[in-house]
Amino acid sequence: MAILLAFGARDAKPWMSALREVDDALDLRIWPDCGELRDITFVIAWYHPAGLFSTLPNLRCVQSLGAGVDHILRDPLLPPNVAVARIVDKSLARSMAQYVTTAALNHLGRFPSYQKSQLKRQWQPLPPIAASQQTVGIMGLGRLGATTAHALRQAGFTVQGWSRSPKKLAGIKAYSEEAQLPQFLANVNILVCLLPLTPTTTNILNAQLFAQLPRGAYVINVGRGSHLVEDDLLAALDCGQLSGACLDVFRQEPLPIDHPFWQRKEIIITPHISSVTDPQAAVRQIVANYRRLQQNQSLINAIDRNRGY
Amino acid sequence: MAILLAFGARDAKPWMSALREVDDALDLRIWPDCGELRDITFVIAWYHPAGLFSTLPNLRCVQSLGAGVDHILRDPLLPPNVAVARIVDKSLARSMAQYVTTAALNHLGRFPSYQKSQLKRQWQPLPPIAASQQTVGIMGLGRLGATTAHALRQAGFTVQGWSRSPKKLAGIKAYSEEAQLPQFLANVNILVCLLPLTPTTTNILNAQLFAQLPRGAYVINVGRGSHLVEDDLLAALDCGQLSGACLDVFRQEPLPIDHPFWQRKEIIITPHISSVTDPQAAVRQIVANYRRLQQNQSLINAIDRNRGY
Repeated sequence: MAILLAFGARDAKPWMSALREVDDALDLRIWPDCGELRDITFVIAWYHPAGLFSTLPNLRCVQSLGAGVDHILRDPLLPPNVAVARIVDKSLARSMAQYVTTAALNHLGRFPSYQKSQLKRQWQPLPPIAASQQTVGIMGLGRLGATTAHALRQAGFTVQGWSRSPKKLAGIKAYSEEAQLPQFLANVNILVCLLPLTPTTTNILNAQLFAQLPRGAYVINVGRGSHLVEDDLLAALDCGQLSGACLDVFRQEPLPIDHPFWQRKEIIITPHISSVTDPQAAVRQIVANYRRLQQNQSLINAIDRNRGY
Repeated sequence: MAILLAFGARDAKPWMSALREVDDALDLRIWPDCGELRDITFVIAWYHPAGLFSTLPNLRCVQSLGAGVDHILRDPLLPPNVAVARIVDKSLARSMAQYVTTAALNHLGRFPSYQKSQLKRQWQPLPPIAASQQTVGIMGLGRLGATTAHALRQAGFTVQGWSRSPKKLAGIKAYSEEAQLPQFLANVNILVCLLPLTPTTTNILNAQLFAQLPRGAYVINVGRGSHLVEDDLLAALDCGQLSGACLDVFRQEPLPIDHPFWQRKEIIITPHISSVTDPQAAVRQIVANYRRLQQNQSLINAIDRNRGY
């Protein structure tokens, strides 16, 4: 029984140390140094190398390093009987809430505009916008969405949410299902995407959706790059239907150097930092899952592979 | 009996309309069209022309357009028996709280750095900082300071305050007087200046004070430009004692085009927009003061001219 850490671009070393602190007897391996492939029953994955899972004959569980599992489920060679789990952690939700609050307040306070004026040594006051005059609409009311909604309310915004299945959150007007989406969008000044990425939500941020927002709305995408139809965003900015966007996730990451987003003055780009899992906070639930697997117990934060989250 | 509006660079027209909506019988004049100088008993002032007050023989009250009165009191020709009042308004405090929260969150989230990376098409994730790991220290715990402290707590920061006279605020560790200043400064990661500008507080943000902060602290000045010794800030940034600053107020406004602040990458410059008085919200208390003056009643939000606020 061994655990394999299969991370794309992310450094595995802090995770090794944190795992060893919890249990220094664990048999840990870092891809591509897998050792005997038949030993590996548990993979901790973050944008793993394609095809990896099908080479592990005794694989029983893939544990995501973050809140999302789309990077695991999209692998067609993931064997059907393998369980998939994700991280649910308060620090992850707080980090997301802090990012979205900053992005929304920045938009209202026009800090990005002032930073551009500063480069030109221009003193150019703009009319202020109060948070209380703005409605933020959050798509996706899971753990991250709910914590973010609460933080935005604390910051003075009016907040409403939309999710696939009906939810109840204190102080938040909640819409659900496809049918209520137009009603939800109609009065949203700042739209936040915090949906899981599934076949149903892929490309959900598209021209048709943007057209249902009030003119001049702002979009914050902290879900996944594939939620957004990139050309539709550019067209909506060009015609003024959207006033701007703050994007932390992209179809290809790192964002390619020749991508048109880089030079758009209405777009704020951050390098997928809105919700970074802290190894110290997450390793306990990972090790707990590994032990539960060995004892044939049900996993913590297992996802429904059919639903996709 | 007439009211004179004496504004420096600010447009008086929205104020005229708002005042007329409250009482269309008011005798309102806009400097320099003063008419008979002896008619004027009440001046609404915002960076008024120097010497104006001494030309008005029947002047009884100068009403500031904002929360600060330093621009009125520093005029040596302000007659000693003239009352001075300021605006106290929830929207003013909320606007200040929103600005400071945005500036503090921006610093933690490194949005200004990412904006600079974007210009160079660089994908450069930086280690995230949680608000809960940061202590914000607010100098000045008046109306604006107290509202701002509360907003920062809601955003997840640990908040402490310092003021001349002792204050009690729920959830905020409050220090007071000169003697407790070193203790207050010792663990502040983000220092916010919201003091009134008086002879005692002029130049309070200086090298000696910066040296008492933990290395790498951040400064947000939303008080007045004259609180800050500009060369001391530049020196503290040069040697790394301070990691950066967000400045909304300056000794000279607009900030002169050749000022060294413009091109410092560690300094965020905004054009005095942190707390802009909304005419609609403020005219009622101004008109009330004018009527109280006519009826020899005490003024609302009068300041103590000896204390300076």
